Amino acid sequence: MTQKYQAQIYVTLRPSVLDPAGTAIQSGLKHMGYETVEQVRIGKYIEVTLDAPSEEVARKQLDRICDQLLANPVIENYRFDLKGMSTSMNISS
Amino acid sequence: MTQKYQAQIYVTLRPSVLDPAGTAIQSGLKHMGYETVEQVRIGKYIEVTLDAPSEEVARKQLDRICDQLLANPVIENYRFDLKGMSTSMNISS
Repeated sequence: MTQKYQAQIYVTLRPSVLDPAGTAIQSGLKHMGYETVEQVRIGKYIEVTLDAPSEEVARKQLDRICDQLLANPVIENYRFDLKGMSTSMNISS
Repeated sequence: MTQKYQAQIYVTLRPSVLDPAGTAIQSGLKHMGYETVEQVRIGKYIEVTLDAPSEEVARKQLDRICDQLLANPVIENYRFDLKGMSTSMNISS
């Protein structure tokens, strides 16, 4: 029997990697009058719904999916929150 | 005196809006053998560091920044978590 899980995945640039898109947004905000913004870093946010027999299996699968497709481990980090979904009740982590 | 805040902003497509990038990733995952992935939705994750006199001011400023620049309110929703950063690093005048 499998259960449905939803993962919220955050992919961020490693702190040592420059973020030109973030710098562009920061500069845009300065021009718009937001002088107090000190830093902007852009990442990806991905919601994945998947079936798995257990939370452990879901976590292992998500680790592989992130390593192989969603994140570039050379320049990016990722982390995810996982919660079980159910039609009758929600298991929040 | 101002305090430093860090906001973690999540910009997601409204549920009614199609997400071709998410569908492409889901199809890629299927080809890689991840048959159990049911849905993938892509969003943006943005970290903003800013100075503000209070949390309320910081929240108002972030709402405006999201509405004006980071999210397209016609097709996207946003939400953010805000946390104060260490007060010991403040330089008081």
